Order: sequence, then C-alpha cells, then structure tokens
Amino acid sequence: MKKVKVGIIGFGTVGTGVVTCLMENGALIKSRTNIDLILHKIADIDIERNRGINIDRSLLTKDANALINEVDIVVELVGGTTFAKDIVLKALSAGKSVVTANKALLANHGNEIFAAAEKYHADIYYEASVAGGIPIIKTIREGLAANNFDKIYGILNGTCNYILTQMSYNNHSFEDALKKAQDLGYAESDPSLDIDGYDTAHKAAILASLAFGDWINLSSVYVEGIRNISLDDIVYAKELGYSIKLLGIAKKVGNDIQVRVHPAMIPNGATMASINDVYNGIYIEGKPIGGTLFYGRGAGMAATSSAVVADIIDVARNLNSSSSLRLPAFTSQKHYDKFTQMADILSRYYIKINVTDEPGVIAKISTILGEENISISSMLQKEVSEIFKPVPIVIVTHSTFEKNMISALSRIQKLSIVHEKINLIRIEDI
Amino acid sequence: MKKVKVGIIGFGTVGTGVVTCLMENGALIKSRTNIDLILHKIADIDIERNRGINIDRSLLTKDANALINEVDIVVELVGGTTFAKDIVLKALSAGKSVVTANKALLANHGNEIFAAAEKYHADIYYEASVAGGIPIIKTIREGLAANNFDKIYGILNGTCNYILTQMSYNNHSFEDALKKAQDLGYAESDPSLDIDGYDTAHKAAILASLAFGDWINLSSVYVEGIRNISLDDIVYAKELGYSIKLLGIAKKVGNDIQVRVHPAMIPNGATMASINDVYNGIYIEGKPIGGTLFYGRGAGMAATSSAVVADIIDVARNLNSSSSLRLPAFTSQKHYDKFTQMADILSRYYIKINVTDEPGVIAKISTILGEENISISSMLQKEVSEIFKPVPIVIVTHSTFEKNMISALSRIQKLSIVHEKINLIRIEDI
Repeated sequence: MKKVKVGIIGFGTVGTGVVTCLMENGALIKSRTNIDLILHKIADIDIERNRGINIDRSLLTKDANALINEVDIVVELVGGTTFAKDIVLKALSAGKSVVTANKALLANHGNEIFAAAEKYHADIYYEASVAGGIPIIKTIREGLAANNFDKIYGILNGTCNYILTQMSYNNHSFEDALKKAQDLGYAESDPSLDIDGYDTAHKAAILASLAFGDWINLSSVYVEGIRNISLDDIVYAKELGYSIKLLGIAKKVGNDIQVRVHPAMIPNGATMASINDVYNGIYIEGKPIGGTLFYGRGAGMAATSSAVVADIIDVARNLNSSSSLRLPAFTSQKHYDKFTQMADILSRYYIKINVTDEPGVIAKISTILGEENISISSMLQKEVSEIFKPVPIVIVTHSTFEKNMISALSRIQKLSIVHEKINLIRIEDI
Repeated sequence: MKKVKVGIIGFGTVGTGVVTCLMENGALIKSRTNIDLILHKIADIDIERNRGINIDRSLLTKDANALINEVDIVVELVGGTTFAKDIVLKALSAGKSVVTANKALLANHGNEIFAAAEKYHADIYYEASVAGGIPIIKTIREGLAANNFDKIYGILNGTCNYILTQMSYNNHSFEDALKKAQDLGYAESDPSLDIDGYDTAHKAAILASLAFGDWINLSSVYVEGIRNISLDDIVYAKELGYSIKLLGIAKKVGNDIQVRVHPAMIPNGATMASINDVYNGIYIEGKPIGGTLFYGRGAGMAATSSAVVADIIDVARNLNSSSSLRLPAFTSQKHYDKFTQMADILSRYYIKINVTDEPGVIAKISTILGEENISISSMLQKEVSEIFKPVPIVIVTHSTFEKNMISALSRIQKLSIVHEKINLIRIEDI
C-alpha cells in the first residue's frame, strides 16, 4: 500500500479540523483508497496552545520550511497572502503537491501559483477556498466539465447569509443581526471582509475563472456589501415576493461576461431563497445540464476539513498513479470576449425613496424614470400615521440598463422632496 | 495534443444527447482539457432513423463489436442487462475503458463488471446511472471522500416526483397525474419500473454501495412504490406540515445499515420538500461535512449527456496521464456490520384508517396502538357530511419499530368498524 506523507502548515481552526478528520476517518479513507495518508508533521508558530484534540506533541514543529522537505503533500492553512504565498511557491518548486483553503491567495496570485505548479509538475488543489463543504470546484472542473456555463449564482458568505436571515425571520435590524453574528462567532470583530462583500468577491472570482477559463482579476469584480440593507428593505421585499441575499454572480450574456457581488432580491419560490443561516448555496445554469443547485455548510472547522481532506485524497491518488497534473491546477482558455461594465448590465431594480408626502411626488419621480426609459413594474406606497414623517415609496422596475438607473437616481436624489439616500437593490429572477 | 477516440453504442435518446453535446461543446471541452475527443463511430441496430441532428452518416455502424476494437473509450448506452453486459465485458477485456449510464446493469452485475475492469486495467465510469445531471457519484466517491456517511435521502425518479407534485399542487388523483406524465412523455406506457420504485431502488443501491463500501444486492433493498398514495394522503400530509416524496434511503444506524425505497412524509420546511416536478435531489449527511444537498434534472437527453460526457472527459484524462484505475471502479471495503431488516427499523408513521363513525372507534384503535407500545403524536378526524360514509382517521405516531406498527395494523384492520385497507406512510424528519 502506497504511503503518502502529509504535512500541515497552520494549526488554527481549519488545521485542527483537518487533523481531527484524518484521525477520525483515517482508517475509513485508507480502506477506501488503498492509500495510507500519514500525518507527518504540523507546523505553526504556536505549538503550545491546546487545540482540544489529543495529538502526539512530537508531530508539532515551528519549522515550516523543514516540513516541506519531509513530506509528499503540503497543506497550507496559514491564510493571508505573504507567508502563505512563500510556502506554497517553495513547496511547488520542491516538486511537492499542495492543498490550500486560501481564497485570497488564489484570487490575488492564482496565475503565478498555477504557473509554478505547471513548471515543477506538482498539483495544487483548492476545493476548500470556496463554499467550504460543498465540492463546487470539483463539480465545475469535473462533474460539469461538459457544459457551457451561462450563470452561476452563489450565496458564498455564511456571515452575510446569517445576518440577512436574522433580519428576515426575526426582524432584527442590520446592527442587531451583526452583533448576534459576532456573539456567536460567525462574524469577526472587524466584519468588513464579510459584510462589505470582499470574501464573496474572492470566491466569485474563483468560480467565474473556472467557468469562463480565464483567471479573473479581483479588480474586474464589482463589489457591494450588505451594510445598506435595512429592515425596511427586507420587509418590502417580502411583500413583493422576494428574499434578499448577498450573491456572487457570474454570467455570460452573449459572449461577454459579468462578475459581480451585491445584495439581490430573488423570488421566494426559488430554492436559493430557502438557503438560510450560515449555509451556502450555488445555483449553476449551463448547456446541456440546465439548472442545478448545491448547498451545504460554507465554513467552519468541520465542513472545511471535508474539502481539504478530499483534496489530500485526490492529490494522493495522483501521486499513487504517477499522474500529477492529470487535472491541471487551472487551464487558461478564455471563453468570452470581454467584461461587461456595470453601467452596461441589464437588470430589474428595486428602489426605495423616502419623500415628503405632498401632491405631485409620484408624478415627479415617474417623469424622471420615464425620461430615462425606465419602465415601472410595480409601486408600493404605505400610509404613514405620523404627520411630517417622510414616506417611503418603493418602486420595482422592468429590465433596464444600470447606467439609465444611475442617471435617474441621481436626478431623483436632487429633488427637494427626497429625504435620505435612495436605496437600490438589483433583482435577479433566478 | 492527445487524441482519444470515442465510440458510442446505442443511438437512442441518451446517445443522441451525447453526440449533440460532443458536437456543440467539443471545442470548449478540447480547450479545457487539452485532449481532443474524437467521435469515431456510433453503433446501433437502426442506422436509418432520423434523430433530428445533423451527423456524418459514415459514423454510423451496425457492428458494435468492430467499433470496440477501433476506439479508446466505449460508451454503452444500449440499456438492459444482456447485450449491454456482453459489450461492456468485451470492451473491458480488450482493455478499452467504458462509460455507461446503465443502472440496471450495475445494480445487477456490478461486481462482475468491476472485477473485469480491475483485471484488464481499464476504467468503467457510471455517473449517468444515478440522478442524471447531478454529479452525485463523483461527489460521493471524490468530493466527499473524507466523510463517514450517515444518511442519504434521494428523490431519484423524476416520473414519480412529477406525479406527486401534480397531486400536491394541482389536486390531481394518482391516475390523472400518471396519465398526464404519460402524455408528456415523462412516464412509459408501462410505468411500473418507475412508479413501483424499482428504478429508484437501482439508484439507491448504487449510492448506498458507494457510501458503505459493499456492492449491495438489489434483493437487500426494501421497495415500495407510490401506487397506494391517494390525494387524501397528500392533503392530510400538507395539513400536518409534510410533503410526500418517493425516497431512496440509505442510512447507517449504529454500525448497521438500511437501504429502502418508499414514499415518505418529509417536513415542508426541508429543502428536499421543495424539489418538485421531474427534478431529482439528494441530501447527504456525514461526518465531518454535516448536511449537504444537490439538485438538478435527473433524466432526459440533455442532463444525462452532461454526465456521460463528464465521464468521457474523466476517462480521457486518465488515458492522457496513463492513470487508468487511478480511481478504481469500486473499492470493496464494507463499512458496516449487517442489514437491518424492515421489521427492525425505527420510524415515525402516518396511518389513515377509514372507519364507521360510531362511539368508541378511537378508543378501540388507540387501545391496540397502546398495547403494541406505539405512542400517538397527533390525530386528525374530519367531519364528513354524508351519513353512513366511512370517516377517515389520520394518526401520526412517535418513533416505533416497524414490526410493532405492522402488528398493530393487522389487528386494527380486522376490526369490524374498519373499511378499506389502512394506508401507512413512513415519516422521515430530514
């Protein structure tokens, strides 16, 4: 039986999960694969802290560089893009295969890393970088490899999905829902990476890259987070038959693509709308597959460890059959013409405008929309009991270009009857 | 660039889909894989019929045996278990890799076929045998390979799901819904393979085999179809907060397993309950992954072709890197002790009893249930306006052994107040 030595660099939450999984399911995996995965060493700057698992302390080392030379597979779980990048490149250049969960590293330095993998004929697998336990990277690269992809919609950030679920089902304000997420450990004390959409953007860029065959630069991805979603918006959306989700969207329209991250209203009947709490979900449309959906836990020690260990098994199978790079880390192919700028996307929109309740308000707003060629699909205006309080008008439009919408909003915003910033949410009819 | 010659045997619906996919996405696949898949020949007994696609007629042959010798990959799309078995074994023994969509062949002769693949060092891939476009076999064997599987629930037959959806949403009777499915081509004129659960059983056996590491004989699978589900049952289930689905169930309880196919009531809140019409869905629970779900089209030319061509790509990658059997067709490992007999499963139950509306009825029934140690969770009795008409009593039980339930039902059935056969539906709290 082939023995494969595995070294883990980074003994934090995910590292602890991976070690636990290898310990608990090691015998099962061995009998499934006829490969003996040997946990050779674990490197971390802190080798004293108790991780709550019973582990032979002689496996722990502070010397990541030495570890690289002793093993067959290097598992990078350090995070960040500096030291992580160093060790990944060092491992590859030593001909060692690499498994990583590091989305930021790949989104920022994918091309350089994949080139190194190719040059030194070593594998780099990265299933855990997107959607934790859902094997979506394998699915796009292998399971659906026969397809021409049209659309990918992903709920890719558990923190945001938790916050939006709390707002929607428990009527929490954004601030209260965020606080709750932080108390439960779902959100960081500085939550901006999650709630401002950057984490989702990293993941959306990776999925879009795999689908459209070109390693997409983060700067090409439009990013908007969920800070501006108010409980009002959630309530109005519900009334209109929609749920609000933070989506990573990769679409091909004609032969151009768009990759964007923003809150979106999706029909309540769509299965994606039922993916709540910290769960992730990804809906894919392609030819010939049609529509297909995958959901599961997107983060956390356990789910992420499933993805990392699956990658270790895949790489070990390659080592066992001398077929590293059987599946190249990334095959550049570019199956599209150009990126569609946000101004040029077509979308339906929800807008919420707080106005002074006086005669002619709706006429003024609808005149501007009409002049910008924007057609109204439905409108909602609630009675407000307190006199002098601004009244929210909610408008849902038919499909229009974003530039027309932006132009209209900038004109409406300047009307003296309009109070507060107008809120816009794009509608995706999944 | 590596050239790989593909031969297709069986030019029916799925074959037509595969040829279409290779024609439409061939260039895309070539650029993705750096492998040139060449459609070398298509064998069928009928090479005259117009399949509605534009194909070079010189590719068509009646000689499947000659085709085998000329290609690298044999795609078996004949169906059935006689001629299909012959050609699969012939191809493998000639060292040719095989892709098949044939669930009946695998469920009945898996061990023999896998042994031949191993002996002649050739691949056999079979993604399309279960759940059409959903890459569930790859997911269980690779994407979730690190997991210890606890539960698999599958909606695996589109025909049944369509019928149950029609009953549930359009209040059709079973007969009307079946007729509608037949009119739309979703059901065969002899629909028993689908509606009596055998198709689901084939697929459940394959999924259970992969999850639990032992090629499971069909005779070990309990099979019950949907013929006895009435519109009444659907309506009562809805009232109780459940949907009725035909499920393929593979469960590990303790170290024993159960593989069964039967209609089941699942909570309306479960995402599985929202998988309707001809769609398939599979929910998997394991450690460390937790719960995860996959849904998509389970049948049809297009979705199935996605799975077949993905397998062709996988096999071609193996040929390209000289790594056939990198992933063995099946690794026997047997990770369980024994099969739990149906009499010994624990379940909650829904029972519907049509009784004469007279004093003491409920006392009689509940006494028997009590004597069999079955505890009632809820009960529903509707007023019926017409005098003398039997009244349905619906009872939902707490968890109990199936043998106790069977014994109680046989006693209740004999009561003079009971009309018609009592209907029992198991409840799965997914």
